[in-house]
Amino acid sequence: MRWSKAVFVALAVLALGALGALAQGLTPQQMDQAKKIYFERCAGCHGVLRKGATGKNLEPQNLKKEGLTPAAVKAIITNGFGGMPAWGKLGILKPEEIDLMSKFVFEPVPEPPAWTFADIKKSWKVYVPVDKRPTKPETTRDWQNYFGVILRDMGQVAIVDGDTKELVKILPTGYATHILRSSKDGRYFYVIGRDGRAELIDLWSKEPTLVASAKVCLDARSIDSSKYEGYEGKYAVVGCYWPSNFVIVDGETLEPLKMVSTQGYVKSTGEFLRENRVASIVSSHFSPEWILNIKEGGQTWLVDYSHMNLKGKPINVKMIDTERFLHDGGWALDKRYFLVAANAVKKIVVIDAKTGEFVASVPVGNKPHPGRGATWDHPKYGPVWATGHIKDNKIAVIGTDPEGHPQYAWKVVKMIETISPGNLFIKTHPKSPWLIADFTVAPTPEANATLCAWQKDNLEKKPVCWEVPGARKIHARMVHIEFNKDGSEFWVSAWANKDTPSFIVVYDSYTLQEKARITGDWVRTPTGKFNVYNTANDIY
Amino acid sequence: MRWSKAVFVALAVLALGALGALAQGLTPQQMDQAKKIYFERCAGCHGVLRKGATGKNLEPQNLKKEGLTPAAVKAIITNGFGGMPAWGKLGILKPEEIDLMSKFVFEPVPEPPAWTFADIKKSWKVYVPVDKRPTKPETTRDWQNYFGVILRDMGQVAIVDGDTKELVKILPTGYATHILRSSKDGRYFYVIGRDGRAELIDLWSKEPTLVASAKVCLDARSIDSSKYEGYEGKYAVVGCYWPSNFVIVDGETLEPLKMVSTQGYVKSTGEFLRENRVASIVSSHFSPEWILNIKEGGQTWLVDYSHMNLKGKPINVKMIDTERFLHDGGWALDKRYFLVAANAVKKIVVIDAKTGEFVASVPVGNKPHPGRGATWDHPKYGPVWATGHIKDNKIAVIGTDPEGHPQYAWKVVKMIETISPGNLFIKTHPKSPWLIADFTVAPTPEANATLCAWQKDNLEKKPVCWEVPGARKIHARMVHIEFNKDGSEFWVSAWANKDTPSFIVVYDSYTLQEKARITGDWVRTPTGKFNVYNTANDIY
Repeated sequence: MRWSKAVFVALAVLALGALGALAQGLTPQQMDQAKKIYFERCAGCHGVLRKGATGKNLEPQNLKKEGLTPAAVKAIITNGFGGMPAWGKLGILKPEEIDLMSKFVFEPVPEPPAWTFADIKKSWKVYVPVDKRPTKPETTRDWQNYFGVILRDMGQVAIVDGDTKELVKILPTGYATHILRSSKDGRYFYVIGRDGRAELIDLWSKEPTLVASAKVCLDARSIDSSKYEGYEGKYAVVGCYWPSNFVIVDGETLEPLKMVSTQGYVKSTGEFLRENRVASIVSSHFSPEWILNIKEGGQTWLVDYSHMNLKGKPINVKMIDTERFLHDGGWALDKRYFLVAANAVKKIVVIDAKTGEFVASVPVGNKPHPGRGATWDHPKYGPVWATGHIKDNKIAVIGTDPEGHPQYAWKVVKMIETISPGNLFIKTHPKSPWLIADFTVAPTPEANATLCAWQKDNLEKKPVCWEVPGARKIHARMVHIEFNKDGSEFWVSAWANKDTPSFIVVYDSYTLQEKARITGDWVRTPTGKFNVYNTANDIY
Repeated sequence: MRWSKAVFVALAVLALGALGALAQGLTPQQMDQAKKIYFERCAGCHGVLRKGATGKNLEPQNLKKEGLTPAAVKAIITNGFGGMPAWGKLGILKPEEIDLMSKFVFEPVPEPPAWTFADIKKSWKVYVPVDKRPTKPETTRDWQNYFGVILRDMGQVAIVDGDTKELVKILPTGYATHILRSSKDGRYFYVIGRDGRAELIDLWSKEPTLVASAKVCLDARSIDSSKYEGYEGKYAVVGCYWPSNFVIVDGETLEPLKMVSTQGYVKSTGEFLRENRVASIVSSHFSPEWILNIKEGGQTWLVDYSHMNLKGKPINVKMIDTERFLHDGGWALDKRYFLVAANAVKKIVVIDAKTGEFVASVPVGNKPHPGRGATWDHPKYGPVWATGHIKDNKIAVIGTDPEGHPQYAWKVVKMIETISPGNLFIKTHPKSPWLIADFTVAPTPEANATLCAWQKDNLEKKPVCWEVPGARKIHARMVHIEFNKDGSEFWVSAWANKDTPSFIVVYDSYTLQEKARITGDWVRTPTGKFNVYNTANDIY
């Protein structure tokens, strides 16, 4: 049989097409680098599967449908867009990295890696066994006034003495530590990194000591311990972004005990989500439960850990359909009501930890970002809880006392106007007359360097706002307010580039005057700070 | 540029390789046919994803690793193997279908189709609205003594009058109806087909009427309604094989209300399963709960439906790690303890519906298959529950009275030897002195046509066994024993080929004498039979 040249040419074209389909535009090395950058910088908002959540959908077919090109994507990554940081202009990603990412997002979405229970178990380490740990505090410092300070891009947590402002210890933690939570007695800090590494810091030893660690997931945001009477510190739970699940671990050793998938349907009736991430977690004081917020699916799960000691390690999961894109939140003043932001739908969901009921869904402004929120007893509205917004220059104050002040309950009683959108955290303390706000992701460096304070009892009054001296010089954004144990002062971080030593500024709670600055070569990329006493007792 | 002929040839080879990779050995039509046969005949045991469960793993790489060829597979499908029916010899699959399937299993596993909540909603039909249904029985027959008889391969359910043995009505139900369950008051039959179609039959109308239907999944095995005081018939739940989930529907209209994925980890610590199927379901009389058995994952879930009326439709799911490959089961005599077979690990799992605890895991014989089991009060052992086995010639009798007879509780108090493996169902009734067993999947036609009866109070005594006259002549296998309302008689189906009219034989409960035969052209492939009173009241 003789084949004509035309047939050969046709087959050659086919072959080249087949080869072309195999050969991606990026080398395996480039793919690996891009996947790493994507995981560290992009997945949090856009999702590992790129289906979008807080950020946009970044699947190639979607980008093409929107008429986007690699060049356009490059400009967006460089200059920022909407709530997205200007990765290029801020110097976080290099031009060649941005170039790589602008190509990567047009490649098919790679299958994200798995992380099994066996992997967790293998990663689990106990550095100091429970019986080798002190039975009472070995330090003479007031460890209940320690601050755990996240040095975000250093992969470190600094323990700072709240009385003397001295650095007590720097501990190496996971990549981009996300939050710290205190055990009920304050003795332990539970640390979770965005890389899914959980760590346990013992504050009772002569100097704070890493006593256990486990890589629980590949991407995580939340951790908390059991706080209900009789179960204090017995268990902890890690909320994972990827794989989408939660993992219950031993509270004193972090030994993994149970893993529960959160893959499921949007609010029980919608599409199936492989990426259905566990956002914030709080630990109830009213029952042996954690409250978990299942982000994309729009569910709040109340996980009862009180049967874990029985055969088959039963847990009770109350699944409530609430609102989609649940993010962060905290307790109302009475610690009975939990308020959590459904940020993409501009709502605050209210859960009653006493009855386990979904109480209300309160419309607020654009992209609420409460952190844990701020709570106080207002002379007119009674107990209130407040949240700032990323995309609105507003703080929403919500009534939280259905018994004493039913007319204000689960309503925005006051929408405070601020100087700028881009607020990340607000905070107060029972001893302080002020409600303090940062503007960390505001569009201007002036706002980034500014703090504002409102009189809690007189929200009509203009706020006191001031630019923090020295912040703009080092291109720092002021972020995260935390009070000390007795509420006499609050600390705010100046979040600059990793290459630049920065500072934490300490203010008087009453006069708002600067009292001190915590400086030193170690103060790099300070962000969240967690005072032991306030964190253990949920005071904010 | 001139390409040499060698390059053309190389490219042509590449192109043919690429085309070969695209062109499967089967045409799209053949693939569709094979997928249909696989879904209907194979997926139940081998899984939609072919990862195996009751049956072996059938992924192509696994078959190849075991040295199997299409020819060998053809022989196995034709002649049967282990617990697998001889599909060819039994005349269920034609030679050309077997040929097709022997090739199909060497093809890559096709992605199974999705079935969303929107699909369920679209499929949902109410034929008779609730307010158009009778408020009291309109029939003069004793509807509580109706038998719902599955005509398996006809896609029909026959309602037969238990008093007169007359056919009351034939109702078209889904492909291969799997089981019927009664509402607490017995008025409704809930029907679930292996094709995931749920149907509701109203027995109060002048003649039994299909009042609602919904295609809840693509593959299902279980359904039950809410039976707890105050919730009688308010909700129903369907346990799906594919997609792996459960769906809560309205008990009177089958309107879909809530869908919960069961994809998850093997017993909280193992591999992730996309195919993690809901096997048997029972409805608790002690609390507003269903007990769901999550097969591959080896978990038992207690689903509390009592908060479904609240905001966000909360359900409470108690997840207990029990044993893998949970299949069917039923209540102990007191309806407090639920016993379920973990068939591939030769165990019976015991759940206490009162405390919600995992009580015991009792080792039994090879592949226990209890159906709902059989229960009675034994003079020595007290209340017992029994199961037969598919792969052992044994019936295991288990003590179920930890208070009155603690020395026998959760132990096999008696392993009865039978005439053959291949038992599918055993049954008794408080009014009958006999424990009856079939041998439906026994290896010999003699055994298939035989029934045995043991004296419940004297298990040492040799059983009475008899071949059912006329069964072998029509190649029928006797299957499934069901008592009538007053326990005076029991019915057994003669399960023959769809082309052959068959019969149901009626025996006296005390004398074991044949009392009647239900015959007629409509009696084709009769299998399970459900007496309204006994099913509603969980008498077995």
